[in-house]
Amino acid sequence: AGPEEQESYFSREFLHRMSEKRTDSQWLAAKQSSPETVFLLFFNLNPLVTAPADEAASGGSDMKLCRLRLPSVEELLRRGDTMVVFLGVEKLPESHSSSAQKDGDDGLTAWFALNTEQNPMDHLRSVDAQSFFLKPPMPGLLTLCENDAGVLAQARAVLAWHSRYSFCPTCGSATRADEGGHKRTCLQADCKSLQGIHNTCYPRVDPVVIMLVIHPDGNQCLLGRKKIFPPGMFSCLAGFIEPGETVEDGVRREVQEESGVRVGPVQYIACQPWPMPSSLMIGCHAVAVSTDITVDEHEIEEARWFTRQQVIDAFVKRGRPPFVLPPRQAIAHYLIKHWIGINANL
Amino acid sequence: AGPEEQESYFSREFLHRMSEKRTDSQWLAAKQSSPETVFLLFFNLNPLVTAPADEAASGGSDMKLCRLRLPSVEELLRRGDTMVVFLGVEKLPESHSSSAQKDGDDGLTAWFALNTEQNPMDHLRSVDAQSFFLKPPMPGLLTLCENDAGVLAQARAVLAWHSRYSFCPTCGSATRADEGGHKRTCLQADCKSLQGIHNTCYPRVDPVVIMLVIHPDGNQCLLGRKKIFPPGMFSCLAGFIEPGETVEDGVRREVQEESGVRVGPVQYIACQPWPMPSSLMIGCHAVAVSTDITVDEHEIEEARWFTRQQVIDAFVKRGRPPFVLPPRQAIAHYLIKHWIGINANL
Ligand SMILES: Nc1ncnc2c1ncn2[C@@H]1O[C@H](COP(=O)(O)O)[C@@H](O)[C@H]1O
Ligand SMILES: Nc1ncnc2c1ncn2[C@@H]1O[C@H](COP(=O)(O)O)[C@@H](O)[C@H]1O
Ligand SMILES: [Mg+2]
Ligand SMILES: [Mg+2]
Ligand SMILES: [Mg+2]
Ligand SMILES: [Mg+2]
Ligand SMILES: [Mg+2]
Ligand SMILES: [Mg+2]
Ligand SMILES: [Zn+2]
Ligand SMILES: [Zn+2]
Repeated sequence: AGPEEQESYFSREFLHRMSEKRTDSQWLAAKQSSPETVFLLFFNLNPLVTAPADEAASGGSDMKLCRLRLPSVEELLRRGDTMVVFLGVEKLPESHSSSAQKDGDDGLTAWFALNTEQNPMDHLRSVDAQSFFLKPPMPGLLTLCENDAGVLAQARAVLAWHSRYSFCPTCGSATRADEGGHKRTCLQADCKSLQGIHNTCYPRVDPVVIMLVIHPDGNQCLLGRKKIFPPGMFSCLAGFIEPGETVEDGVRREVQEESGVRVGPVQYIACQPWPMPSSLMIGCHAVAVSTDITVDEHEIEEARWFTRQQVIDAFVKRGRPPFVLPPRQAIAHYLIKHWIGINANL
Repeated sequence: AGPEEQESYFSREFLHRMSEKRTDSQWLAAKQSSPETVFLLFFNLNPLVTAPADEAASGGSDMKLCRLRLPSVEELLRRGDTMVVFLGVEKLPESHSSSAQKDGDDGLTAWFALNTEQNPMDHLRSVDAQSFFLKPPMPGLLTLCENDAGVLAQARAVLAWHSRYSFCPTCGSATRADEGGHKRTCLQADCKSLQGIHNTCYPRVDPVVIMLVIHPDGNQCLLGRKKIFPPGMFSCLAGFIEPGETVEDGVRREVQEESGVRVGPVQYIACQPWPMPSSLMIGCHAVAVSTDITVDEHEIEEARWFTRQQVIDAFVKRGRPPFVLPPRQAIAHYLIKHWIGINANL
């Protein structure tokens, strides 16, 4: 990562994806039967985790994904309904690069993610009795350590795609998973999806804009709350980028739709993968050119301008904070914090 | 658009999308039978256009989308296999805002896009004899005027989604278009896609990173060519963002995969919708931390470092330019031009 780049939760690339191995079925098969390989297990997209030993000390956070080995998952791997996705290999120290070629083995530790829709507990061997499936996804998925959150983001997004896209959108036929779980191929021989390259065969990533809107006076920001938010919480507005739209126009459209506020200049700040199921949150600061608020009640319960001082109070939780911030794992938190840290006039 | 924002081809929001009207089927029906309404027609995703009157003068560019009216398309609208997408309404001058309420009409001019997979020529009435379907998409789609390119980007991307996603990816059943063509709903009553909100029901936008990689010396940039490029053309590297990945990590991964070059800091510059079929090109500058090139021959025919002077020569087409730049309509062109315009040291 570059020096000024913000590392967001879910974004750490703990593994090297090695996409060139996805088409090497022999290599993938060898890794899938290697005792060194790490398997992560999901049950209906919920990951198997263990709580830290001293849960009290860590406040229940820093949950670990269970790193299973071949003997634990052998039976699951044999079942036809287990989805298997190749995630990548552990990164080697720079020095180590192209050495480690012992007995035809490349010395690389591969990771795979498995998902099943039937309770896998009876089919697992030698699994820590303390482990459990983390569910529902929120806020459980925000309690992982940074490395595991990064691996989970890839794993859960690709597995969620398989679970919702198992039929060919072009012809309705069944499809099969290919290329280490990074592609699906239609089983109907004369399907148009098989002529040329089509996105129907590849995992879907939904670009979303999420923005902190700054008041024309430079000293207030616009935050909104959805009905489903915890009590008192306000966060950035956000919405899906539409076909044929830029990031900047998406920001202006969504802010106008949800709050009635008109926006001028937009500045990209940072982004975050959000694997529920597979969004790319593109975080921006935006400068309002109007200030009247009319909320879209389908989406937003309330939207308000908060002063810089109110936002600072919410951060330091001084007195009775005027509102609750989104959790630090969400890019909204960073967009707000970043604003507080920079000059009042954008 | 903000003062410093680059307007890219395909990005102009000539219409106001008015997404709140997508669920107002009465309003949509009224507009579809209004004589004021503008219809754009596509045949297998190729738009009906007319060449400018003085084609010689304009060099064959600035093609116009044909703006059809109700009498021309009435028969097509009645056919069940014509896909209809509501694009938005013409923007009103600020002053005009909420006036113009005559006879229950809101005074707004709506635009729709129609696509058919059967030659529609026999079903059209009173269409300019000079009009024709622009195909294949490239480079034809780059010859529109800016307003039309912006409308086309939305229209073609949504229509392309309907043409490839007419079956439910979750259960394989047929689906029907809803909400003015901005949603598809599964027809199988107990489909999981009908419980909760799922991206299977909404148009797909694929985020892509496209990047100009700058040499560590600050005076060269990395360009590559695909086999399908016109002779001599070199452009920026690009690739699909993967699930669980940030823009910045996508840049680093794709550059490494395609050229072997390692990248450090990444900076967002500008973006562009690319409706073939529906990508969002996220344009960045990136600084290399290594310089040896090893191309991935599946994707890239050749990749090379070009000096600033060579790039300038390509722009001014001085002498025998060392390579051909991508067309000005592509964000790659802007990323390269922007680099030439800024200080040598990023
Ligand atoms: N890819 C998508 N996934 C889920 N919902 C979508 C998607 N695209 C559009 N929507 C719609 O957008 C709404 C959320 O609004 P917003 O996030 O503000 O764009 C959802 O309730 C859906 O109706
Ligand atoms: N959404 C997608 N649409 C088309 N091709 C994709 C997509 N995602 C991954 N691919 C693959 O990516 C290749 C192009 O490589 P790149 O653009 O460098 O990522 C294609 O040939 C496909 O194999
Ligand atoms: Mg919205
Ligand atoms: Mg939206
Ligand atoms: Mg929203
Ligand atoms: Mg690539
Ligand atoms: Mg790629
Ligand atoms: Mg590429
Ligand atoms: Zn098919
Ligand atoms: Zn269905």
